[in-house]
Amino acid sequence: MAPRRKHDILNATLDLLAEKGYEGLTVEGVAERSGVNKTTIYRWWPSKAALLGAALVEARALDFEAPDTGSLRGDLHAVVEATARLLTTPPASDIAVAALGAAAGNPELAAAIQGFFADRYARELPIFERARARGEIDDEPDPMMIMDLLAGAVWLRVVFRGLPLDESFTGDAVSVVLGGVAAEPGSRRGD
Amino acid sequence: MAPRRKHDILNATLDLLAEKGYEGLTVEGVAERSGVNKTTIYRWWPSKAALLGAALVEARALDFEAPDTGSLRGDLHAVVEATARLLTTPPASDIAVAALGAAAGNPELAAAIQGFFADRYARELPIFERARARGEIDDEPDPMMIMDLLAGAVWLRVVFRGLPLDESFTGDAVSVVLGGVAAEPGSRRGD
Repeated sequence: MAPRRKHDILNATLDLLAEKGYEGLTVEGVAERSGVNKTTIYRWWPSKAALLGAALVEARALDFEAPDTGSLRGDLHAVVEATARLLTTPPASDIAVAALGAAAGNPELAAAIQGFFADRYARELPIFERARARGEIDDEPDPMMIMDLLAGAVWLRVVFRGLPLDESFTGDAVSVVLGGVAAEPGSRRGD
Repeated sequence: MAPRRKHDILNATLDLLAEKGYEGLTVEGVAERSGVNKTTIYRWWPSKAALLGAALVEARALDFEAPDTGSLRGDLHAVVEATARLLTTPPASDIAVAALGAAAGNPELAAAIQGFFADRYARELPIFERARARGEIDDEPDPMMIMDLLAGAVWLRVVFRGLPLDESFTGDAVSVVLGGVAAEPGSRRGD
């Protein structure tokens, strides 16, 4: 399939998800919106969940370029800002919330979302390799734990609590993960 | 309404949500399961979302007793363990995921879930007041940020990534939040 055609199909998929939710998303609707024949779409993606899985990883609306700012603090700040932007700016925020919501009770879609997070994590790993090379972290901290804490905090605050992100949110979150909240040095990790 | 009757209604609501998802949850079904007349239920809760909102805060399946272990590390460990248990043990895990999933595109249910998180946060606050009194944290760290990071990490790992929680997950998460991951003391919060 021509890259531009594939691109049109995947973007139509996310547009329709943002507009109509997962229930309202249909392969027929994607065919109509993208101007590509329905049978052509089915030849590439056997189900609505498979189509959405590909769209989540490949479409431009959720695109993610891992930052390289020269410091771990700068890189983490950029990643959290990107997550915050994604979860507060339509249509990406509608896409993310609708996809996650529909995954409850839909194992095929849940697998597609796990693929999305795995893809993103693979692109985040160089941040931690560079931080180790610079001596900013030692071998012990698990990069996945760091990303779970930071991205999870954005989800909790914005989506679950429904609260706005104040200006200091990103800086505060990164500072806690880098330096901790304990008052005494004796509480530092590994002591 | 007699407390036991209310209790029966709210537990029937969560049972049905766990079994059938939000779409399959009906006031009729709750009436049948709890043996309480439908019009009686509607007199107390004007909608399915209102009923679920009350159930999320008051029913026993999601009950939460803030720990008081004598240390901030112990208390946070207990809170993260409780969240991990909730998100990995049926029926509470089905209830939580179904409720969050259905909240996408349902403002009334989203408000109910925000009420659930606000109620839980109010019960978590004494943990941080005691930690301040013991000198374990100073005035600066925002308790909500700490809870967002820790609870968010459990959601990310278990629900979004679909990965199991290994034995060290809770201890590692709490250690990062208390002590940070930065290799140099110069990266500590507030330095």
